[in-house]
Amino acid sequence: MSVLSSHVLGEWVTPDAEGRPMSDAVTGEEIGRLATEGIDMAAVAGYGRRVGGPALRELSFHQRASLLKALAGYLREHREELYAVSARTGATTGDAKFDVDGGIGVLLAYASLGKRELPASGPWLDGDVVPLSKGGTFLAQHVYTPLQGVAVQVNAYNFPVWGPLEKLAPAFLAGVPSIIKPATPTAFLTAELARLIVASGLLPDGAVQFLAGSLTSSSGGDLFDHLTEQDLVSFTGSASTARRLRTHPVLSARAVRFTAEADSLNCSILGPDATPGTPEFDLYVGQLVTEMTVKAGQKCTAIRRAFVPAAQADAVVEAVREELAKVIVGDPVAEGVTMGALAGLEQREEVRRSLKSLMDGAEVVFGDPEQVEVTGADAQRGAFLSPVLLRGSPDSAAVHEVEAFGPVATVVPYASTGEVVELAARGQGSLAGSVVTADPEFAREVVLGTAPWHGRLLVLDRTDAKESTGHGSPMPQLVHGGPGRAGGGEEMGGLRGVAHHMQRSAVQGSPDMLSAITGRWVPGSARTVTDEHPFRKHLDDLRPGDTVVGGPRRVTEADVEHFAEFTGDTFYAHLDAEAAAANPFFGERVAHGYLVVSFAAGLFVDPAPGPVLANFGVDNLRFLTPVRFDDELTITLTAKQISPRASAAYGEVRWDAEVVNGDGAPVAKYDVLTLVAKRDA
Amino acid sequence: MSVLSSHVLGEWVTPDAEGRPMSDAVTGEEIGRLATEGIDMAAVAGYGRRVGGPALRELSFHQRASLLKALAGYLREHREELYAVSARTGATTGDAKFDVDGGIGVLLAYASLGKRELPASGPWLDGDVVPLSKGGTFLAQHVYTPLQGVAVQVNAYNFPVWGPLEKLAPAFLAGVPSIIKPATPTAFLTAELARLIVASGLLPDGAVQFLAGSLTSSSGGDLFDHLTEQDLVSFTGSASTARRLRTHPVLSARAVRFTAEADSLNCSILGPDATPGTPEFDLYVGQLVTEMTVKAGQKCTAIRRAFVPAAQADAVVEAVREELAKVIVGDPVAEGVTMGALAGLEQREEVRRSLKSLMDGAEVVFGDPEQVEVTGADAQRGAFLSPVLLRGSPDSAAVHEVEAFGPVATVVPYASTGEVVELAARGQGSLAGSVVTADPEFAREVVLGTAPWHGRLLVLDRTDAKESTGHGSPMPQLVHGGPGRAGGGEEMGGLRGVAHHMQRSAVQGSPDMLSAITGRWVPGSARTVTDEHPFRKHLDDLRPGDTVVGGPRRVTEADVEHFAEFTGDTFYAHLDAEAAAANPFFGERVAHGYLVVSFAAGLFVDPAPGPVLANFGVDNLRFLTPVRFDDELTITLTAKQISPRASAAYGEVRWDAEVVNGDGAPVAKYDVLTLVAKRDA
Repeated sequence: MSVLSSHVLGEWVTPDAEGRPMSDAVTGEEIGRLATEGIDMAAVAGYGRRVGGPALRELSFHQRASLLKALAGYLREHREELYAVSARTGATTGDAKFDVDGGIGVLLAYASLGKRELPASGPWLDGDVVPLSKGGTFLAQHVYTPLQGVAVQVNAYNFPVWGPLEKLAPAFLAGVPSIIKPATPTAFLTAELARLIVASGLLPDGAVQFLAGSLTSSSGGDLFDHLTEQDLVSFTGSASTARRLRTHPVLSARAVRFTAEADSLNCSILGPDATPGTPEFDLYVGQLVTEMTVKAGQKCTAIRRAFVPAAQADAVVEAVREELAKVIVGDPVAEGVTMGALAGLEQREEVRRSLKSLMDGAEVVFGDPEQVEVTGADAQRGAFLSPVLLRGSPDSAAVHEVEAFGPVATVVPYASTGEVVELAARGQGSLAGSVVTADPEFAREVVLGTAPWHGRLLVLDRTDAKESTGHGSPMPQLVHGGPGRAGGGEEMGGLRGVAHHMQRSAVQGSPDMLSAITGRWVPGSARTVTDEHPFRKHLDDLRPGDTVVGGPRRVTEADVEHFAEFTGDTFYAHLDAEAAAANPFFGERVAHGYLVVSFAAGLFVDPAPGPVLANFGVDNLRFLTPVRFDDELTITLTAKQISPRASAAYGEVRWDAEVVNGDGAPVAKYDVLTLVAKRDA
Repeated sequence: MSVLSSHVLGEWVTPDAEGRPMSDAVTGEEIGRLATEGIDMAAVAGYGRRVGGPALRELSFHQRASLLKALAGYLREHREELYAVSARTGATTGDAKFDVDGGIGVLLAYASLGKRELPASGPWLDGDVVPLSKGGTFLAQHVYTPLQGVAVQVNAYNFPVWGPLEKLAPAFLAGVPSIIKPATPTAFLTAELARLIVASGLLPDGAVQFLAGSLTSSSGGDLFDHLTEQDLVSFTGSASTARRLRTHPVLSARAVRFTAEADSLNCSILGPDATPGTPEFDLYVGQLVTEMTVKAGQKCTAIRRAFVPAAQADAVVEAVREELAKVIVGDPVAEGVTMGALAGLEQREEVRRSLKSLMDGAEVVFGDPEQVEVTGADAQRGAFLSPVLLRGSPDSAAVHEVEAFGPVATVVPYASTGEVVELAARGQGSLAGSVVTADPEFAREVVLGTAPWHGRLLVLDRTDAKESTGHGSPMPQLVHGGPGRAGGGEEMGGLRGVAHHMQRSAVQGSPDMLSAITGRWVPGSARTVTDEHPFRKHLDDLRPGDTVVGGPRRVTEADVEHFAEFTGDTFYAHLDAEAAAANPFFGERVAHGYLVVSFAAGLFVDPAPGPVLANFGVDNLRFLTPVRFDDELTITLTAKQISPRASAAYGEVRWDAEVVNGDGAPVAKYDVLTLVAKRDA
């Protein structure tokens, strides 16, 4: 049998070794072998750092986002090839789409986040400028810079496409090269993904390497032995492997970032209001069956513990049994099959062993762990297993500790809200939980009570059911991971996952220094005032610090009264002297805040047609000193941040606006947001 | 000699054991002993979880912030007692203030952050609502909830007051009980701090426990053995101890959060522009001497590697020698002494050993490691050491790897910007670095080049010098920690340090469910419209969802022309039909954005005097659809978040404002911020 090739140091390498076999989950036939003999692991890490990292960091966030989008498009074009191979992992077409399309969706989500939320140039800033001194000469800004190492991505066997892409996307966007290590049983599918990624020719050399086999090569050593302070490891898999990898001496000696996402004993909680006949009861049953059967229950987020009010336990068991009876197990490509095989025979044995332990505290109420009727395949040669529903006692330790990583869940009755919150915690940390209820008070108590133990919690009810993505689906915008048994890690979560690949540093200095370093004008820095109004400058010519000063303009009583009449804003503080005098902040009549910003616009605007296309918003407007009659207002508007849009003829300009009164006291501070045309547009 | 008492399970306990001795750093006399024999570590952890945690979580962020403030006040009143004991650790009065006042400052900073930035009730929300569906029935919100375990805080000997308070403040504000473990050499000073905290009677029972000795008690076991998924460990100390603790089998088995802050080979970089005679040259020399001598150089942030342009190396060495010659070493309470003792004789031996290793790659150019003239004390009995300046080669491995944790630094010449960035990285991860230059371009290159290796970077120049807090001072608002050798951890950083004590969870559901769970009105949720205008309601009576709908109001050409004339905002898009037609977003003349929000205010305001006191700002205003002539505007204003201020007669109300046109298309979305009086005010 042929050994899968690895893509390392810019080329495909096929080890000359016997390797470990991979089998077709449906037929049991050997598909190929895995080996990394002869691969120099130190060189692989070094190549990522020396070639991939600099190439990625050479690109902007927006450029990297564009490449992710292009890659997503390429994979979408070739997804049928991935679906075809998926079937050999035991996956139905639905399962394959979940895996393949889900992975492509993560690439697209990160592409979009990168373009929308990350800066066109300069470092990514975390939070606002931090004032550190009274005189304003000393302040700080937190910045994110990409780690200068490699991201070693150790994947699980259950999502051979989504898993690697979910780890690759944030790393790539951050500017950190990836080394993809697939899990043995389904490595042949991840190899197909790697083949497509390389064949696309889209990504810079060294940005992605693929190790089709163990991280330890008899001749090349252990990759972990070669990791350094700027590398990171993100692991998905079993809690026991996570534990072993986490304590690798090199990781602890060099404080290498390690994040783990381990399967966990996730729970789904039925609310007491959701009695039979309610939409929530049906949603609960339907979701439980889905979670048991999608990917044959091989999902680290799947429901293992189904907590239901004691009074409803019989009804839930009955309803779930009824649905499970409709499940057709078999060859995933055979007509009518709704649940495929487990990833392999070893995995099936493991599930059966776990089921035996579970049966200490629970009884089987549906399915036979030892046999199942199979459509279109041989039940013994393929890794087929019946869905198995158990019913257990809340006091059983096994129910809360033993995970059967297959189409298996246990219904557990609970007596009170307090009890079910405690039962959820007995899972010792979960990736995902769900509460199915139409009662907001119950949802609030359970969600806030169980949140410390969960990375994600879903409240499912009749309102969101139709659009809900369900208990088991991690979303790129949301954190994926959980405390304790779930690994203690966090992935994705939108930009949070990008930040996990970067170093956050506090940079202290004078305003001018921070402006120079961040590329964003920092209040207190030098302003550039010239004869040319900055609204006359195209995006390319505008520089942070370009400033226009307008005013002074006197605000009269007549102005205020007129504005009140014109807009209808007759709030007492503007018109009623007696009431205004009693106001704790004003003491006398004052101008409208909206009048102040309207006058300010009149003072800073350069009216003739030009590169400024629109004012699309205002941020962080604060009224700081009341404007009294006959106060004279001066506005200073300074270009703060200039963000070209890659695929548009314009970009965004964020202006710092400061209005002061005749005493120089700040009246209003805000950011004005405009769209400004590029020069050649 | 007496054994120090621990404060555990709500009472002071004095172990009946011989214990480990602590010595006066100045005289060498024994001060007392440390032991934890007989203390049941499982019970200590359990007490924190069972008594301290629930008591803390019962309080709001604002209440916990008030307690931190009160504690700061109490400690400030008693700070002379802490100064007095500090002298016995070898600290000068200046050192003691750095430690004691710095620690009190951290408490105050967190008190202020808690009141200003954290919600008055409900969970702390992370980021915005995340839309997850087209129809808007399914969305998500990340929330932070406090971990339900204990924070085990393992402190270093160099900051016996600041260290524990820097760890306590964010934990306490998060709602997580602390177990304080002092470092042996200076535990007697931390014990004094613990005595004051307990004597203050301010903090809830179980919120702070103090273990005056080892975490392993011969009869009580190892505290780490009893940690669980919801606990966390924050360690400050040596890199080697960090490595050992990090791999504790219970920590890895249960994915207990572990953060380490280890001393590191921090560098300070002199810019090529900063030649002798420039203010930056003098600042560099002055700062280096300060960092070498404050706390006798026992600061994990102190400068160990002084990188200077090769051409300036002689001049820097000469200038630093000159300043070091003025340092007076001795009994910290003796007249004229400017540098005290190291924490103990063991520490001095350790520094001398490190100096021997350093001398492989560097030569001593100031000071004698073996002897020093001492004022007011015995040079051999007290842990005194001369400041030692070395001059080393950039190629010397020892210079980048060996840390002498005392008044020791090495001047290293560099040839180019690229080289100095690489040299900085050879420290393998640092807490703090500094660049002393007046050249913004050099600062930018060096800061962004070295940021991946640093938790904090200071740019020092003539502008910020006067207000700068200096290279070695961690600030509560800024992250403290660094990658690799510096431990890979992160502490403080303002609210970031609070988040490190909480679980971040993504909560998915319908808008109404998310509103109920977060206590904040989520767009898409039910609105409450009654005959009573919400501006008539006092803060106590207002509820998220309370809504007023105003309009429709037609916007006419005359309105726009009048507004342009009145405000002076004659931007072409409002007045010039031809130019507006050419605008890519408008195609015809449109109304001013400021006119839209002014009219909107006219539509939602209830003008009569009442509980609404002021509109203090607007957030996230976005203009979404241009307003054309004769469009009719309707505004919907909904109370979104209601935040009483603890010590004021009013609170803040954040309103969701949405303006739509006659087609129902969104014209503008924003948050209106008002101050609203409490009922009994």
